[in-house]
Amino acid sequence: MIKVGIVGGTGYTGVELLRLLVSHPQVKIEVITSRANAGTAVADLYPNLRGVIEHDFSEPEIEAYRDCDLVFFATPNTTAMKQAKALLAAGIKLIDLAADFRIKDIDVWEKWYGATHACPELVEEAVYGLPEMNREAIKSASLVANPGCYPTSVILAMLPLLKHEMIEPSSIIADCKSGTSGAGRNASVGSLFCEVTDSFKAYGVSGHRHLPEIRQVLQLADAEADLVFIPHLLPIIRGIHATVYADAKGGADDVQQRYQQFYQNEPFVDVMPAGSMPETRSVKGANTCRIAVHYLAESNKYVVLSVIDNLVKGAAGQAVQNMNLMFGLNEAAGLEAPGMMP
Amino acid sequence: MIKVGIVGGTGYTGVELLRLLVSHPQVKIEVITSRANAGTAVADLYPNLRGVIEHDFSEPEIEAYRDCDLVFFATPNTTAMKQAKALLAAGIKLIDLAADFRIKDIDVWEKWYGATHACPELVEEAVYGLPEMNREAIKSASLVANPGCYPTSVILAMLPLLKHEMIEPSSIIADCKSGTSGAGRNASVGSLFCEVTDSFKAYGVSGHRHLPEIRQVLQLADAEADLVFIPHLLPIIRGIHATVYADAKGGADDVQQRYQQFYQNEPFVDVMPAGSMPETRSVKGANTCRIAVHYLAESNKYVVLSVIDNLVKGAAGQAVQNMNLMFGLNEAAGLEAPGMMP
Amino acid sequence: MIKVGIVGGTGYTGVELLRLLVSHPQVKIEVITSRANAGTAVADLYPNLRGVIEHDFSEPEIEAYRDCDLVFFATPNTTAMKQAKALLAAGIKLIDLAADFRIKDIDVWEKWYGATHACPELVEEAVYGLPEMNREAIKSASLVANPGCYPTSVILAMLPLLKHEMIEPSSIIADCKSGTSGAGRNASVGSLFCEVTDSFKAYGVSGHRHLPEIRQVLQLADAEADLVFIPHLLPIIRGIHATVYADAKGGADDVQQRYQQFYQNEPFVDVMPAGSMPETRSVKGANTCRIAVHYLAESNKYVVLSVIDNLVKGAAGQAVQNMNLMFGLNEAAGLEAPGMMP
Amino acid sequence: MIKVGIVGGTGYTGVELLRLLVSHPQVKIEVITSRANAGTAVADLYPNLRGVIEHDFSEPEIEAYRDCDLVFFATPNTTAMKQAKALLAAGIKLIDLAADFRIKDIDVWEKWYGATHACPELVEEAVYGLPEMNREAIKSASLVANPGCYPTSVILAMLPLLKHEMIEPSSIIADCKSGTSGAGRNASVGSLFCEVTDSFKAYGVSGHRHLPEIRQVLQLADAEADLVFIPHLLPIIRGIHATVYADAKGGADDVQQRYQQFYQNEPFVDVMPAGSMPETRSVKGANTCRIAVHYLAESNKYVVLSVIDNLVKGAAGQAVQNMNLMFGLNEAAGLEAPGMMP
Repeated sequence: MIKVGIVGGTGYTGVELLRLLVSHPQVKIEVITSRANAGTAVADLYPNLRGVIEHDFSEPEIEAYRDCDLVFFATPNTTAMKQAKALLAAGIKLIDLAADFRIKDIDVWEKWYGATHACPELVEEAVYGLPEMNREAIKSASLVANPGCYPTSVILAMLPLLKHEMIEPSSIIADCKSGTSGAGRNASVGSLFCEVTDSFKAYGVSGHRHLPEIRQVLQLADAEADLVFIPHLLPIIRGIHATVYADAKGGADDVQQRYQQFYQNEPFVDVMPAGSMPETRSVKGANTCRIAVHYLAESNKYVVLSVIDNLVKGAAGQAVQNMNLMFGLNEAAGLEAPGMMP
Repeated sequence: MIKVGIVGGTGYTGVELLRLLVSHPQVKIEVITSRANAGTAVADLYPNLRGVIEHDFSEPEIEAYRDCDLVFFATPNTTAMKQAKALLAAGIKLIDLAADFRIKDIDVWEKWYGATHACPELVEEAVYGLPEMNREAIKSASLVANPGCYPTSVILAMLPLLKHEMIEPSSIIADCKSGTSGAGRNASVGSLFCEVTDSFKAYGVSGHRHLPEIRQVLQLADAEADLVFIPHLLPIIRGIHATVYADAKGGADDVQQRYQQFYQNEPFVDVMPAGSMPETRSVKGANTCRIAVHYLAESNKYVVLSVIDNLVKGAAGQAVQNMNLMFGLNEAAGLEAPGMMP
Repeated sequence: MIKVGIVGGTGYTGVELLRLLVSHPQVKIEVITSRANAGTAVADLYPNLRGVIEHDFSEPEIEAYRDCDLVFFATPNTTAMKQAKALLAAGIKLIDLAADFRIKDIDVWEKWYGATHACPELVEEAVYGLPEMNREAIKSASLVANPGCYPTSVILAMLPLLKHEMIEPSSIIADCKSGTSGAGRNASVGSLFCEVTDSFKAYGVSGHRHLPEIRQVLQLADAEADLVFIPHLLPIIRGIHATVYADAKGGADDVQQRYQQFYQNEPFVDVMPAGSMPETRSVKGANTCRIAVHYLAESNKYVVLSVIDNLVKGAAGQAVQNMNLMFGLNEAAGLEAPGMMP
Repeated sequence: MIKVGIVGGTGYTGVELLRLLVSHPQVKIEVITSRANAGTAVADLYPNLRGVIEHDFSEPEIEAYRDCDLVFFATPNTTAMKQAKALLAAGIKLIDLAADFRIKDIDVWEKWYGATHACPELVEEAVYGLPEMNREAIKSASLVANPGCYPTSVILAMLPLLKHEMIEPSSIIADCKSGTSGAGRNASVGSLFCEVTDSFKAYGVSGHRHLPEIRQVLQLADAEADLVFIPHLLPIIRGIHATVYADAKGGADDVQQRYQQFYQNEPFVDVMPAGSMPETRSVKGANTCRIAVHYLAESNKYVVLSVIDNLVKGAAGQAVQNMNLMFGLNEAAGLEAPGMMP
């Protein structure tokens, strides 16, 4: 049994991690920490876990994790970087679900996250935890930077086109829509039910932190003209839908086939039949990314539609997938339940 | 492995049964039938099952079930009663998720369901599949009538008070609220998104088919004054919330303790701490019924709050629980995943 | 033109008051105050008012209201009572949309609202602003206590039965469901989109502040057994649905007719045809209360269903109706737009 | 008073037209027709209109409109074209809210709408009813083709950029999101609450009927590469959000000013301050289109965000605006109520 700790188990990412881990056949949850809720029963905050999780939240002290093989940081940005060194030194592996280790260029990170990085030397060592790109590196990693939710949806949508050089990289436009759980469980007027429901809007048009992450992973940083990424807020709990546009280079005859081949061995990427339009609900609660690729002949553009559950493949599920790889387990362990429809 | 067939796998109850059964360690799905969709891949209708269910829908002919140990009827009312005899004669067990075998009094059934019963002789033999009442009978049953969703929520809420004779049976008022999936996946104007969302209403005030079922099971039929049951339509997908009122007889000092004792060995009934108010989302996707009992001293009334997922403990999950009992499996097999929050 | 001021124009009640007042033919908005947002344009907070309201929020100082004929307090409880005396002394009329002047018994008020009342002498003078009960008194009032949203829905539902002594007052059970805008525009985890949507729960079972208000107005305070009032939270923005149960005394033959007669001259109470079940959306944005009365012969109980928009007939609309009465205007001025469906 | 008839008053567009017209100071509703509901009271179908509309639905015979000055067709496509000639011959003006008269090229229309046009000669005469483009022509028109909802949002977003030749027309990508009321009030599984809520998807990727309409109005038909238009379905009732991308030609310094100037005299187009991101709810129930224009320097692209209420500025409100113009009334008559927030 892998013994794991969860730091910051009170947010939506944290509780989703708990939901997945309690069904994982090879994991024992050692400790769940929360500074604000130390002493409270986890199940008092999340009654769906009554009878399943007996733990109380503990204080987030390093010593709390001493028996762990792995610690998940389901914390706000800039938390994991302060404890990573000590944990790694103690032989404990670490998956950060926040952004502390995602951006390799420290200057870029510091600009977008408005903080001084506490351990730049670990950033280089960290592996970007997208199994579809970095599976082998993840297997031997001690420190994994779990990808952002938007980047996961956009990168998986575009990888085959970029790898096959079928598009002009400078033409990519990612029009993305995210469920409100992506904003976390913090009390803020903008996330109130009455502010979000029965409405829709864009946000972050002038720049969103996931933009440099997508650029880096797709290696678009040096392109003359640059990726456009516009996020929008959906009145749904879970789900990201990326609609990604790009100018085609050359013919498009076999784009469906190329997607299917590219992802044929991937347990969590589902290339849908030609002509499909995936729904976010088809992945609700599941670790799957469903993709449909369309070629528009009149405008010679590709339109790629991808959907994930931002809390699963976009966060906690991908973290479990990474854990499975890091510990030599079946990559799909604990992640096999299908999505919930309706 | 238990070999099962599902009749009518295209409705919401059917797809939920599939979602649960694919994760069940001791079940093999033999056949899924649908007259309207025969020949279509199940996963085309329910893309959450892509990669998990390879079956096409078959024609609902008796011979389709010949290799099954058990057949679930996730069909409209009056379907199961037409095939039950032949299946039972072939040694195949049967769980009807509709109402054909729930009401023992054939006259009452025929009045409420507007049809002539096709096999009254089987009604007597059928066991009402509420494990918390009839566990032993279910274990040896060949034909199980899976309870209605509202009755499940109301009966579990009231059983301890009735068994301990702590209330006036004639005073019971069940104010119930159900998610829209209870109305099924039929195209009807009343179930359209724009008709249901951002609104709320009562329905069936003059009489709902679940009323005689609750009466029968709670043995209230002969009471002089009668149970009041008012259903309401909630703009949510899954979930029933029953708010049940009854006049107290005698003192209420130990009502919390009595509920806890009554249900202490039940794997799927969670008596919440005194003062609790359960949320429907705490059981989303789970087979759990959460109950909170309140005593209002000023009015000398009990108010019992109970929540279930109408598609799980109110339908498909309870059916799987019944199957587990009928075949001597662990009662919780395939039903252990916690609810999904948020 | 009546010159009005609005104190606390940033909450949902405040903005709804603005929406109604800008279409009122005989009102001029003088000033809108907000301590937290002083200096900000009202339309920056509520872009639906862009081009319609040019005001900035002002500091809530008494002198800000010096040119007003009337001031609305759309503030949290305990605010209006601190300024009422000075305003009345300056000849300015006042409508408090909060609870400071609703409860005549100061001890009861102080117990439920957890504060010492700042001007008990004004409480006696204040008129409870339910036009259907107190129209004449409102016309000559200087200080009106605008009713709570739940009390409005429950009182209008029960008045005919009580006035005609057709029920046992001690048997009343009000099972009420409210949209989330009733919780206001304060940042709180419990009101987040992801906490409210796709779920349902009761709250305040042990006691809600609207309970003593309903008791007082229905004059039920001395009944031996007492009114039961259980509020629930609906995942909708606007709307209250009250389902009120009571034991019938005597026959029920003409209950429909009695309701129609009772409210025949009321511009904002709509008694629906026998057998109806009103939807909250039928009054979305409208000042109407729709009521349907049902008699259940088997249990000899009445079930009365009433719906209002909690922000309109339950708050801002009723305040405008009261203003119209206080200033001798057409009672329906500014309130004639029908509800919005869908 | 203008005497109007409404054909097809049972759909969402029809009822919205009624909601607006009952508050219009210079309109008298003569007749509301519906073949399916003839004889039923309008208010029985739409209880928000109880006490406001006394009409029953009439049979949709030509003679029913004989006293009308104007008839609105709020009918499915291909209905208006069959009655237009007779009405016009009788001196009755006509506004078609469907698509029969929007497309000038009959071949294009017949291809996209799958029908033979019944009166091609009237198509030429019909005026495309977008007041911001065709105000003068509308004033003298007898037959107005009310624009589609998507085209309204996209065209108003792009007009200033196109008129000032600030973009490459061939680069336009319109990523549009519409509320579900756009799908109408027809019973279809795809529009069920449980199919739409808590989910999101694209549709019509291979081609949507509003594409040729946008092309025609923006005069993009001959461009070598063509407009991309991808619609998505939002789990909200009302609202369209268009996110439109285009490559900039030349500098962008004064784009905000140009938008403000372009629309400075328009009563129903609101150019928001630089940096804004409009919400669909800010126009709920209102005839306003709110637009925000952004220039992304890194990619040298414009992103224009526009929101409308698809049932108002996208349908019934625009029709009333057109009626006002056709009859020399104040263009804003009956359309002045602000949107409803929350």
